Amino acid sequence: MSILIKGGTVLSSTGSVRADVVVEGERILAVTAPDGWAGQADTVIDATGKYVLPGGIDGHTHMEMPFGGTASVDTFETGTIAAAHGGTTTVVDFAVQAKGSSLLSTLDKWHEKADGNCAIDYGFHMIVSDVNDGTLKEMDACIDAGVNTFKMFMAYPGVFYSTDGEILRAMQRARGNGGTIMMHAENGIAIDELVAQALSEGRTEPVQHALTRPPELEGEATHRAIQLAKVTGAPLYIVHLSAMQALAEVAAARDTGQNVFAETCPQYLFLSIEDLAKPEFEGAKFVASPPLRDKEHQPKLWQGLRTNDLSVVSTDHCPFCFVEQKELGRGDFSKIPNGMPGVEHRMDLIYQGVVGGELSLSRWVEVTSTTPARMFGLYPRKGVIAPGSDADILVYDPEATQVLSAETHHMNVDYSAYEGMRLKGRVDTVLSRGRVVVDGSGFHGGRGHGRFLSRELNQYLN
Amino acid sequence: MSILIKGGTVLSSTGSVRADVVVEGERILAVTAPDGWAGQADTVIDATGKYVLPGGIDGHTHMEMPFGGTASVDTFETGTIAAAHGGTTTVVDFAVQAKGSSLLSTLDKWHEKADGNCAIDYGFHMIVSDVNDGTLKEMDACIDAGVNTFKMFMAYPGVFYSTDGEILRAMQRARGNGGTIMMHAENGIAIDELVAQALSEGRTEPVQHALTRPPELEGEATHRAIQLAKVTGAPLYIVHLSAMQALAEVAAARDTGQNVFAETCPQYLFLSIEDLAKPEFEGAKFVASPPLRDKEHQPKLWQGLRTNDLSVVSTDHCPFCFVEQKELGRGDFSKIPNGMPGVEHRMDLIYQGVVGGELSLSRWVEVTSTTPARMFGLYPRKGVIAPGSDADILVYDPEATQVLSAETHHMNVDYSAYEGMRLKGRVDTVLSRGRVVVDGSGFHGGRGHGRFLSRELNQYLN
Amino acid sequence: MSILIKGGTVLSSTGSVRADVVVEGERILAVTAPDGWAGQADTVIDATGKYVLPGGIDGHTHMEMPFGGTASVDTFETGTIAAAHGGTTTVVDFAVQAKGSSLLSTLDKWHEKADGNCAIDYGFHMIVSDVNDGTLKEMDACIDAGVNTFKMFMAYPGVFYSTDGEILRAMQRARGNGGTIMMHAENGIAIDELVAQALSEGRTEPVQHALTRPPELEGEATHRAIQLAKVTGAPLYIVHLSAMQALAEVAAARDTGQNVFAETCPQYLFLSIEDLAKPEFEGAKFVASPPLRDKEHQPKLWQGLRTNDLSVVSTDHCPFCFVEQKELGRGDFSKIPNGMPGVEHRMDLIYQGVVGGELSLSRWVEVTSTTPARMFGLYPRKGVIAPGSDADILVYDPEATQVLSAETHHMNVDYSAYEGMRLKGRVDTVLSRGRVVVDGSGFHGGRGHGRFLSRELNQYLN
Amino acid sequence: MSILIKGGTVLSSTGSVRADVVVEGERILAVTAPDGWAGQADTVIDATGKYVLPGGIDGHTHMEMPFGGTASVDTFETGTIAAAHGGTTTVVDFAVQAKGSSLLSTLDKWHEKADGNCAIDYGFHMIVSDVNDGTLKEMDACIDAGVNTFKMFMAYPGVFYSTDGEILRAMQRARGNGGTIMMHAENGIAIDELVAQALSEGRTEPVQHALTRPPELEGEATHRAIQLAKVTGAPLYIVHLSAMQALAEVAAARDTGQNVFAETCPQYLFLSIEDLAKPEFEGAKFVASPPLRDKEHQPKLWQGLRTNDLSVVSTDHCPFCFVEQKELGRGDFSKIPNGMPGVEHRMDLIYQGVVGGELSLSRWVEVTSTTPARMFGLYPRKGVIAPGSDADILVYDPEATQVLSAETHHMNVDYSAYEGMRLKGRVDTVLSRGRVVVDGSGFHGGRGHGRFLSRELNQYLN
Ligand SMILES: [Zn+2]
Ligand SMILES: [Zn+2]
Ligand SMILES: [Zn+2]
Ligand SMILES: [Zn+2]
Ligand SMILES: [Zn+2]
Ligand SMILES: [Zn+2]
Ligand SMILES: [Zn+2]
Ligand SMILES: [Zn+2]
Repeated sequence: MSILIKGGTVLSSTGSVRADVVVEGERILAVTAPDGWAGQADTVIDATGKYVLPGGIDGHTHMEMPFGGTASVDTFETGTIAAAHGGTTTVVDFAVQAKGSSLLSTLDKWHEKADGNCAIDYGFHMIVSDVNDGTLKEMDACIDAGVNTFKMFMAYPGVFYSTDGEILRAMQRARGNGGTIMMHAENGIAIDELVAQALSEGRTEPVQHALTRPPELEGEATHRAIQLAKVTGAPLYIVHLSAMQALAEVAAARDTGQNVFAETCPQYLFLSIEDLAKPEFEGAKFVASPPLRDKEHQPKLWQGLRTNDLSVVSTDHCPFCFVEQKELGRGDFSKIPNGMPGVEHRMDLIYQGVVGGELSLSRWVEVTSTTPARMFGLYPRKGVIAPGSDADILVYDPEATQVLSAETHHMNVDYSAYEGMRLKGRVDTVLSRGRVVVDGSGFHGGRGHGRFLSRELNQYLN
Repeated sequence: MSILIKGGTVLSSTGSVRADVVVEGERILAVTAPDGWAGQADTVIDATGKYVLPGGIDGHTHMEMPFGGTASVDTFETGTIAAAHGGTTTVVDFAVQAKGSSLLSTLDKWHEKADGNCAIDYGFHMIVSDVNDGTLKEMDACIDAGVNTFKMFMAYPGVFYSTDGEILRAMQRARGNGGTIMMHAENGIAIDELVAQALSEGRTEPVQHALTRPPELEGEATHRAIQLAKVTGAPLYIVHLSAMQALAEVAAARDTGQNVFAETCPQYLFLSIEDLAKPEFEGAKFVASPPLRDKEHQPKLWQGLRTNDLSVVSTDHCPFCFVEQKELGRGDFSKIPNGMPGVEHRMDLIYQGVVGGELSLSRWVEVTSTTPARMFGLYPRKGVIAPGSDADILVYDPEATQVLSAETHHMNVDYSAYEGMRLKGRVDTVLSRGRVVVDGSGFHGGRGHGRFLSRELNQYLN
Repeated sequence: MSILIKGGTVLSSTGSVRADVVVEGERILAVTAPDGWAGQADTVIDATGKYVLPGGIDGHTHMEMPFGGTASVDTFETGTIAAAHGGTTTVVDFAVQAKGSSLLSTLDKWHEKADGNCAIDYGFHMIVSDVNDGTLKEMDACIDAGVNTFKMFMAYPGVFYSTDGEILRAMQRARGNGGTIMMHAENGIAIDELVAQALSEGRTEPVQHALTRPPELEGEATHRAIQLAKVTGAPLYIVHLSAMQALAEVAAARDTGQNVFAETCPQYLFLSIEDLAKPEFEGAKFVASPPLRDKEHQPKLWQGLRTNDLSVVSTDHCPFCFVEQKELGRGDFSKIPNGMPGVEHRMDLIYQGVVGGELSLSRWVEVTSTTPARMFGLYPRKGVIAPGSDADILVYDPEATQVLSAETHHMNVDYSAYEGMRLKGRVDTVLSRGRVVVDGSGFHGGRGHGRFLSRELNQYLN
Repeated sequence: MSILIKGGTVLSSTGSVRADVVVEGERILAVTAPDGWAGQADTVIDATGKYVLPGGIDGHTHMEMPFGGTASVDTFETGTIAAAHGGTTTVVDFAVQAKGSSLLSTLDKWHEKADGNCAIDYGFHMIVSDVNDGTLKEMDACIDAGVNTFKMFMAYPGVFYSTDGEILRAMQRARGNGGTIMMHAENGIAIDELVAQALSEGRTEPVQHALTRPPELEGEATHRAIQLAKVTGAPLYIVHLSAMQALAEVAAARDTGQNVFAETCPQYLFLSIEDLAKPEFEGAKFVASPPLRDKEHQPKLWQGLRTNDLSVVSTDHCPFCFVEQKELGRGDFSKIPNGMPGVEHRMDLIYQGVVGGELSLSRWVEVTSTTPARMFGLYPRKGVIAPGSDADILVYDPEATQVLSAETHHMNVDYSAYEGMRLKGRVDTVLSRGRVVVDGSGFHGGRGHGRFLSRELNQYLN
């Protein structure tokens, strides 16, 4: 079964070329000059006037994630179908170690959740909540099992929180085994005190979520994580960076050549504390951690994407319905489940950066696909249109328009954080490992197509 | 005429893939999975065990350049043949406006020198020595003529030097027409005073060249150029950065997202002031500006290449023979012609950084080919192995070894700055626009094959 | 003749004490606990409820200064009388070397202007406009003559401007002889180009003075001066710092322990580019260089005073009448004489910083008196209330109020830059070398009382 | 009872004057020009050729401090007598809250220890080990009781350690009541992990104390404390700063005008990790926290003293005998009591900085006396030679020499950290509140003379 994608402009992280792409089975067989293919093709996709780019890689999602007695509402099936609709063909989700359990049994559990249910390929990061001798040894086994990125939390005391000593130990292990430590960098100990003060003073509305998590405490934790990484020699990847203070710390470390990397998310680029302050508890829709910030942070984040101090855009997709889930926090913002939906809109939203002059076309491809592929050990299988690579391909129509809405999105959640937002550009066709899963006539993929990706190590390490 | 390069590992700035490359005429027709090409090929090159990468682009050479009454000794013919031997398939040389002459007539003159004489493709930057209303208008015409990078000098008063006011005017013009200002950033006014003091005190040996050009004065000029660029909004490219102080200025500007870029050269990575201090006037071989620095700068420069605060490695190839040319400065270091040979060894020398763990393979390709292609508006025609691109291809043997020597090099100069240096890796085969110019049996190219490259604008501008 | 100042609060740069001050002749004989003086006094001044502090030292004035065919309108007599009214008992004025003349003859000329005419003590800085072998040697002689601070200009090409090479030479000399280089740090070469462009485009109004002198060009020159000082090892004092960019450069240098110091002036703390933009040519009243800046610079300058990155407040008093002098620039802002009146109001204006919580009382004394005394080699003769010190004493009433106006000021100029400004605090009594020159009943001093101060070297050098 | 100190050079933090000092009872009555005193004196001290300066203020001592089952060996009596011998006339010691006890009862207990036992005046800081609602309220009461500086620990988990949440709460309280938070800034959580690893690997010798407390973890904690102070608005004083990384954080914060201050100690200026590595367990003598650092930190600390990023030199005097106390840690460095003797030698040691060109005379006075007086709310009662001030006076002989040794020192400890060190300068005469306690004939003071100092608030707050 072969497919020829003809007439398009093939994008990479370095630029664009007019070229045709030949897919044979699950992989790309060749990239040729226009009309340069000497062989036959079973199917021809006309990409005239369109961009042909590697499918998006969302390095940060939470499907079916337990949180505070409830769980995020997208299953691996619904979440990956939504991702595919948005041009994302790979997600890396987080397996979540519960205190007292082992990493490998956790990984088994997450395999059970995902296996046979995903519409696109997927990998796992491992959230390490419980650092001990056993866990540390298991980190090596996780790496053998294709999971070499270990997320830790400086926030959420009593839940995911690790002490600086535990972080140090995990970093030492990562230094030895080639893993990368991912960090939720907020000073949760200080934040919990501010939260308690707010509640005791009757400040209970959603905007307090942001007011009790000041950006300085994200900057602080980022600095601390960087120093611990320096002491141990471990690679460090800061997840969901939202604050200019944290960005400044990352930039300073990167200037010294330290293996420090960071991602941001669309919500920090497009939304702000003003959304959290919406009346009638609507602000709850925007509760995630770190919180949405003052608008002054947004241009700094776009700048960070340009300077590569922010290397990746992920979504931190973690959807909770407004009804019954977000509503758990009426009268107590600290009980609002933390998380926002977004896996479907990342490619489109960041493309708005191209439209608005914030990013180049090639940088769009880089931050949404090529860099996550390299960072998470998937390149060149993913993240590039190249012979031998998986045929995860997005044909994107740069001239189409669309309006985001919960009415039309495919995520299993009852609201959109971007309701009514008008966008330029739209997904035209999506291939996942050689199969056309989305095209103008609808969705042709489904659960079970997606396979687990055993990942190699971070390719950016100095 | 088609060529199939089979069995190799194709390198790009993002990684490597096992792939075959199909060349048809002057261009790459296709890149396919191993054995994936469905058509025929007239010639097959076996690249098994070898790297297949885009030919090197040396963005800074001076062939036949007049300097202080003499001229650099490589002609466009000898210099480009030497480049080809070293795996470089494009050079961007500098047309040099003499005071009082026009830019366009200068360009004509350089076309005359180069046309029909080059063995590989070439482009021009324009050295602007004389800023006036006429020159500024001509900058626009230069851009139309494919020359959009304008080098200015903060050094060499009375020769190439421009005042800050002249630089400001040229930058304003570049801001308007899309050009990029290239800067030789040393405070030549202060340096000339130090030189005069040295001579008047009888300090005349070659090492005084470095002692009278302290790194702080490169850092200073770099800062000044950056501020003038900020005031005017012009893109700025710092040539031949040699000092950590200058690097720090570039890094600080880049952190703010300003369009500031920099290159360094192999001599600053591998040689030092100790070479300048060699006895018997041998130090004269190493006189170039900025001067070779203390060794402590070298690890900072490698780090800058990793952090991308240094984006490009060029050679500043400007060879003068030791006999009769360098010797002009016996008894007065200020009369030693400034410049060193190097165009032939850039790919090999920077590959030593890969061998030594300083750079990744993909970064080697990036700093020597892909980034210069993008920076100088040649991408994707050059700088990448992609369909439609010129078939400028380097097949590199990573396991071979070689020893550098004036006895064996192809540059038209009577010494090597790296005499006796033992290297790992060696050029195997070189294609220039589809023609095999170097292979195991010798050199098959020659003058006249190389064509002028009318260049697009810098592709890195924010 | 002895005076006892009783009942006041004596201020120093470190705090305040309730104490009595005994003056005998021209000097302070003793400072005692309240009522602690065992001897007699001819006169008793009741300072109850008032501050007793060292008389102000204005380290930057221009009396009778030639500028562009005219001259500043305060003579040494009128200017020093105005200073005394404002609580300033020492000025350090600038002798101005004309191109082609010698430093010592210049100094003679300024002695002639000042001798016998000043109402308070005075010293000189030397403006070096013409650097050559002779001048450099004369710098040593100036130091012997009590003038060890040498001002140079990076602005005003063709007038006061020195090249970086000339600055380097002067700095080398200062490094050797203990002098301090004072710098007007603006990139005048670039500025002159911007000025020419403005005029050629018909932008001629006073606000263009600021728009053609962007703060980046003050930051740039400040950085450059600091680097030249670093290369030479010379102490550097940045005069009339106005821009946050320049302040950042000074702060960075000071963090490294380099001998770099800076002053700002009241006009940069209280006035802004909005004043320059006043209609009907009124903006001309506010033309000085560096220009008044956007208001956002003001809080940064106050902060610099708190952090001691700005160590001194001087006035750069250089008054030109609006009528006939400022008016020379109608239709061409570049012809407006550069300078503003201010010598009379410095103590009062900076005291407003105390009132407004910007500075502590002790910091007020420090930046207006103690630090200039130490910086300019006058301490402990001046700048402190201590036994043996000159009895230059200001009794200040912190509760009085006043309104500034050209109607009431004593400067010989037809406008006030602070017309109508209401202040808290007022000069009560002023002693100059033991003589009461100002008290509630009026002015009792006069020309001839002030003596030339042969100054020691800068006391802050590391 | 009056004393006249005649013929000396009186030093202050701004310079020196030839002056006589008149003491009446416990206070300074007058400072006069030489021979300027009109009254009589009971006693005359000849200070010809000597410096007369305010007695030293050691803002950081631990007399009789419980630590790990033992206690520091100097009692308030022996420790203050030793201090007096070294020219220090005020100490501020630390009351140590035990977990579960109250601040006020702690203060009572420390008053009991000290009252009637001290030879010189003394104050208290309060170590807050147990933050809770009651403690926070007590902080206000402590301030009323003259104790407004609250030390907290980011090190020593399980002992003095406070969490970031507890620190935040205490800082909020300090923001409200005017107190200053003093911080032991080392990341004790991470350090304890490194210590455990060292012990488990059999690395037990004293030098491991330093190796398990890397300077990055002092820099980290310093940054964290500064951010918490920024979030809360509290003044912050970093105690015993030892590492250049921590200094850089303090300097950066101070550049922004934040109320951040720091002290260092003589041991960090003169001793190094090489002392900790001395064989035969002798390194144990030098175990204190933070640990002695590599020598490369020393010039940075001296520079910090010059730039005022380090404002104070205290001793952290906390002596444990080598025999039986330090020896508790044979075979386990973590059991070595943390602390070194030093209260006696601070004035002499820092004077070596004057001798060696590191500090000016006035800076010597400033960092050892005037600044601690202002920082700890004792000025002008202490820290200056001024009328009305306590007659705490040090007459210092700059030309005498001495050799430090346990044989001759007055501290109650069996070793000297500076054994055999030869110094220039020596204490001549010491007055404590008007009483000559040390002179050439010996010690004339004794327990009971020293009084508790109820301190005002920090006088440096912006
Ligand atoms: Zn997440
Ligand atoms: Zn150059
Ligand atoms: Zn950077
Ligand atoms: Zn060059
Ligand atoms: Zn600073
Ligand atoms: Zn001036
Ligand atoms: Zn401590
Ligand atoms: Zn302590």
